[in-house]
Amino acid sequence: VDPVIYGRHFDDRVPAGAVGEKLLKRNLSDIAAMGGRPVAAVISVTLDAMVSLKWMEEFYRGLAASARHYGVSIVGGDVAQAPHLLAASLTLVGEASAGRVLTRTGARVGDWIFVTGELGRSLPTGHHHAFIPRLKEGAWLVRRREVRAMIDVSDGLAKDLHPLTPPGATPAIAAERIPRRGDAELRAALTDGEDYELLFAVAARADLPAFERAWKRRFRRTRLTCLGHFVRLDSRPAGTIDFGLYHGYEHLR
Amino acid sequence: VDPVIYGRHFDDRVPAGAVGEKLLKRNLSDIAAMGGRPVAAVISVTLDAMVSLKWMEEFYRGLAASARHYGVSIVGGDVAQAPHLLAASLTLVGEASAGRVLTRTGARVGDWIFVTGELGRSLPTGHHHAFIPRLKEGAWLVRRREVRAMIDVSDGLAKDLHPLTPPGATPAIAAERIPRRGDAELRAALTDGEDYELLFAVAARADLPAFERAWKRRFRRTRLTCLGHFVRLDSRPAGTIDFGLYHGYEHLR
Repeated sequence: VDPVIYGRHFDDRVPAGAVGEKLLKRNLSDIAAMGGRPVAAVISVTLDAMVSLKWMEEFYRGLAASARHYGVSIVGGDVAQAPHLLAASLTLVGEASAGRVLTRTGARVGDWIFVTGELGRSLPTGHHHAFIPRLKEGAWLVRRREVRAMIDVSDGLAKDLHPLTPPGATPAIAAERIPRRGDAELRAALTDGEDYELLFAVAARADLPAFERAWKRRFRRTRLTCLGHFVRLDSRPAGTIDFGLYHGYEHLR
Repeated sequence: VDPVIYGRHFDDRVPAGAVGEKLLKRNLSDIAAMGGRPVAAVISVTLDAMVSLKWMEEFYRGLAASARHYGVSIVGGDVAQAPHLLAASLTLVGEASAGRVLTRTGARVGDWIFVTGELGRSLPTGHHHAFIPRLKEGAWLVRRREVRAMIDVSDGLAKDLHPLTPPGATPAIAAERIPRRGDAELRAALTDGEDYELLFAVAARADLPAFERAWKRRFRRTRLTCLGHFVRLDSRPAGTIDFGLYHGYEHLR
């Protein structure tokens, strides 16, 4: 379940139809990160009475077109009124596409850390609503036994690495390994968020060259980067990123 | 999926724990109206950064206690920030408790209209958060073949009768049949909303006395009222309520 909220996840520069599409795709990205297949959704809309019917129609049209495209049935919903607000939340039900699902836990010290695509500057570039959720990639990764844990990067790498990191460990990642979108600075790539890329851990003893060759054969156009690996808390090499300096997106202060 | 929004479904007079409980129970009422059994839920919270951690903890405690009580697993959720807002939306997944589920459609001209409990003045009396969702009643009704369609009264009887009414028909209900809560006036009983009672249609040819006897044996303390029946649009008897005069709760104006 993930929302889109006016002023936070979209504004007047984003067409209403693209907002509806983004709402679905944000949630598809979560299903992708488990290696799942999307099935059905319900939507909850909260809006000021001043929102135009035209905006709502275009929003729903964008959502419906995207739902058809991804084979999702919108099976219910709710509309409520609240002043000065335009927000919609979607709950997406998925099912396992393989014999298992991937979760955020399962990585171990020594495991390799991979990320798809590029990070940072999602808002100024329009990536935050134009992205394509990594459903195919997720469904492929869940079938690879060497992949141990996965999450999608929605709050920024610095924050989303946390739940993937095994207890007593820390990521050892050199700054120059981070794949940045365009001229994104390091801090932007680590903390902007809304990247909707897959971040996952591969078993330390895996055959990395074979894994990367198989990826390239299957996903010619999706960049894959090995960022580094998990090390014990007290043994992070000099020259790697101190993630304690970055907080990423924080919901509650 | 149904929300609770500050200023709309609760205010400072309602303890945080009761708000969490209400959020779950609103959705349980929807499952009850299908004759379903609740299974699992996800929650989406949108709040101003100024909301106290104490309030949130009590809210979650109330929600969790209620979820335990009703056997619901809270399996996921999301928190987002928005200024001047405190809202939470819950999506509840249920399963059929019998061989079928009841929906809003299925009533025919001639069918009897029943409602549980009493209507109106839900806010001033605290019923809007203290109510007990009609899960047992719903699970019993879905097993009675003479029950054809059901809905819960959340927006007020005048509005919630609409989706239950068959095409080309209208309800024929005398004002004195409406079971009112305390000193609720007729308009309040028809339009206040948040009653969370079950409204359902019973086949015209059913044995009403036998149905009502069976209800009384099973639910000694839950009032059941036969309001009237559905007639053809052009044949509503004089002295029955003209529902065209009442609009109930309207989401979009």
